[in-house]
Amino acid sequence: MTTLKKGGLLYEQVAGNIARQIQAGALRPGDRVPSVRRASLQHRVSVTTAVQAYLELENRGLIEARPQSGFYVRSRQRVNVPEPLLSNPAKSLRAGGTPEDFLATIFEAVNRPNIVPLGAACPSPELLPVKKLNRILSSVNRSTGAKGLEYDMPPGCLPLRRQLAKRSLDLGTNLTPDEFIITCGSMEALALCLRAVTNAGDAVAIESPTYFGIVQLIASLGLKAVEIPTHPRTGLDLNKLEKTLNTRKIAACLAIPNFNNPLGSLMPDSNKERLVTMLAEREIPLIEDDIYGDLHFGPTRPRVAKSYDQEGLVMLCSSFSKTLAPGYRVGWVAPGRFFEKMRNLKFTSTLADATLPPLAVAEFLSSGGYDHHLRSLRRTFARQVERVSDAVADSFPSGIKITRPTGGFVIWVELPSRVDALKLHARALAEGISIAPGPLFSSSGGFHNFIRLSCGYPWSAGIERGIGILGYLVKQMM
Amino acid sequence: MTTLKKGGLLYEQVAGNIARQIQAGALRPGDRVPSVRRASLQHRVSVTTAVQAYLELENRGLIEARPQSGFYVRSRQRVNVPEPLLSNPAKSLRAGGTPEDFLATIFEAVNRPNIVPLGAACPSPELLPVKKLNRILSSVNRSTGAKGLEYDMPPGCLPLRRQLAKRSLDLGTNLTPDEFIITCGSMEALALCLRAVTNAGDAVAIESPTYFGIVQLIASLGLKAVEIPTHPRTGLDLNKLEKTLNTRKIAACLAIPNFNNPLGSLMPDSNKERLVTMLAEREIPLIEDDIYGDLHFGPTRPRVAKSYDQEGLVMLCSSFSKTLAPGYRVGWVAPGRFFEKMRNLKFTSTLADATLPPLAVAEFLSSGGYDHHLRSLRRTFARQVERVSDAVADSFPSGIKITRPTGGFVIWVELPSRVDALKLHARALAEGISIAPGPLFSSSGGFHNFIRLSCGYPWSAGIERGIGILGYLVKQMM
Repeated sequence: MTTLKKGGLLYEQVAGNIARQIQAGALRPGDRVPSVRRASLQHRVSVTTAVQAYLELENRGLIEARPQSGFYVRSRQRVNVPEPLLSNPAKSLRAGGTPEDFLATIFEAVNRPNIVPLGAACPSPELLPVKKLNRILSSVNRSTGAKGLEYDMPPGCLPLRRQLAKRSLDLGTNLTPDEFIITCGSMEALALCLRAVTNAGDAVAIESPTYFGIVQLIASLGLKAVEIPTHPRTGLDLNKLEKTLNTRKIAACLAIPNFNNPLGSLMPDSNKERLVTMLAEREIPLIEDDIYGDLHFGPTRPRVAKSYDQEGLVMLCSSFSKTLAPGYRVGWVAPGRFFEKMRNLKFTSTLADATLPPLAVAEFLSSGGYDHHLRSLRRTFARQVERVSDAVADSFPSGIKITRPTGGFVIWVELPSRVDALKLHARALAEGISIAPGPLFSSSGGFHNFIRLSCGYPWSAGIERGIGILGYLVKQMM
Repeated sequence: MTTLKKGGLLYEQVAGNIARQIQAGALRPGDRVPSVRRASLQHRVSVTTAVQAYLELENRGLIEARPQSGFYVRSRQRVNVPEPLLSNPAKSLRAGGTPEDFLATIFEAVNRPNIVPLGAACPSPELLPVKKLNRILSSVNRSTGAKGLEYDMPPGCLPLRRQLAKRSLDLGTNLTPDEFIITCGSMEALALCLRAVTNAGDAVAIESPTYFGIVQLIASLGLKAVEIPTHPRTGLDLNKLEKTLNTRKIAACLAIPNFNNPLGSLMPDSNKERLVTMLAEREIPLIEDDIYGDLHFGPTRPRVAKSYDQEGLVMLCSSFSKTLAPGYRVGWVAPGRFFEKMRNLKFTSTLADATLPPLAVAEFLSSGGYDHHLRSLRRTFARQVERVSDAVADSFPSGIKITRPTGGFVIWVELPSRVDALKLHARALAEGISIAPGPLFSSSGGFHNFIRLSCGYPWSAGIERGIGILGYLVKQMM
């Protein structure tokens, strides 16, 4: 049964429940879904709400209306495509080639005209409130006058820290403005966190796979990554993590509990609590990257692990780069007991952030524009993830596996084991298609036959063609 | 004799020559300066130019007109105040107290209302082209549209890199746009340079004293600072540096040849060449901080050490934070052969910079507004340095020493040896006055009786009173 939860619309919840039934195989391709009247009884909602839910599911491409006959689960290839299994980090080192070079090609492709943008995880500017933000920035610029040219020293933009404190309730926490430090994107937040709690040579536990920027950051700081297996739905395998913590010295744990990049996995709340407790018992800081937390497809904004933090050991990082304005470079960290150390590191990292962009974001948040924008952005990303997954299922050879993310906007695809993702990446780039090859998501050279595809851009003929070519290249390489 | 050099006005050069005679003691307080007619012959300029030069010197407070009698060197306390001697870095470690805390108080004072701003080296917003820049930013924001919200990936803002390449001729170099990487202020540039060419535990040769941000950065990266003595006029003592290079392993040298902070020293060109050669022979990278290079009081823009770089070993860093807009956070680096390494490090440091501020700076540069602005800013800073120096000479006890900077906007004051600058800093802050205590400018706890005073704000009753109180506090502590 459906209960109305804060922040979600009723019809979205109903649609979410039915979508989960489809994904879990309770409703299979070709099955007739219950009539609207029946659904309204089952989910204890009005008929109007049930209709809205079905339209939403149709929109997402999950069901289709057949004239005079009702709604049916769409018959799609992808429903038969399984998810990857529990990850198993490779033990060997990466063979040949420098990961930095691949990283550079992915990031540089972002600004390349006419690229098929399946590489870096960037939201399309078409999906961002460009006009509104531009207007706010100009207005802030005018009203701020000389202050806009002056340093805004760490912890940085107070109006934004006030908004973040307000919103921290949605994350299951209750933080005050003076617990936040504004940063130049969440990349700077993560870098400062690691520098605050580790020294060169220390070991850091990370999810395997995890965001390639994190893998590179750890390497660039002279740290050792200890990769913990993950489940594609629930994230970090806590039993494996515990075993690792019991057998070797770990200086910090860095994880993306909400919609891990690249898996899209969502760690259950009970796991978050266990994770925080497990680390606190050993006085190990948790660096929590929540950059995708606002992009849940389900009705409720997931809690952060920080919400279970009793000891000030959780350093919560996020930004507005995935939801609002990558080019504003507005990130933040709530670093708990490491606040002063982090602020001091910020002084010698970038000293301060550009003064105006965080002010514009604060103004956008306080106007309520952000929540409105997020509601439509979440629906759009959910739809785009469905669309890209479908196209991959259609174009790629059988035997592949695709994750079922419940938030964010990337999918993680396991290719036949003979396919070398690094080579595929090079060939795809030569065809004007940017993708992110699996080995970048691991410090040990694992995931050689995985790729991550970004679904940050609206479905287009170009993307459809790009995925078709990718599938062709994969088949060639088998 | 005076020759017209690019970038300077004739009367400024004449004034500069006479000012140097006064500073060198060739003209002493109370001396009559040559008549305008005589000066015009001596300097081979028109009488009008000589008059302009004398007015400029009067403006700077160096000479005064006496009715019916001509111009005389002003009788001032400070003329009798000597400069500090060659610096002698302490061998012992700093005793008690954490330098980070002092750093934080100095930086935080920047945004404190009603503070007497002699601490952090910030240009007063009154001296910045606020209206013009605000207008440009809004216009860039409008015309850039969605692009302003998108990532601008490293090496960053191409229009700005084009402008920097153009201006590189003024620095004695000839760099191309693709040799620059835009950074979040020069602090990020310096941090990335050190990370690119050192590993934790390495030794880095620095000037003693040098900017406290550099001292802290080196400590935060787990590097060892090796302090090289400096001369208050010519900077790094190259004989001492060479001796150090011959006796121990140095991973990099980080220096501010043009207007060292806090000394205001200017390394002669022949020294720059020797420095670059000396390091190149040993394959040691030079990280050159040129953040004050545009703020020369003399007629000519000094060359950068990079102009002697044959090997790509000089990593030239600077920003627009001292001259244009600290709050825009627009810095840059031309890292020579370390370009790719630096770009890759930038990916995991801040990923990218805010997109719009560098575009606005590029537009300001291309409009020619920057050079115009610099001309007046340099005169203003020269005047402010004179004013603050005079006031210190008047208010502080005899026996102190003051540097004679030829660029930038800070002075370095040696107090009687019994005065503890850290205590003075605390007492001054309690009185609402921010200063920078000497021990921060050294990793070894030296300069316990030195302070740096910023002259970035226009002379005011508040600053006058603040310096008076400082003098009183110093006398109390003797």
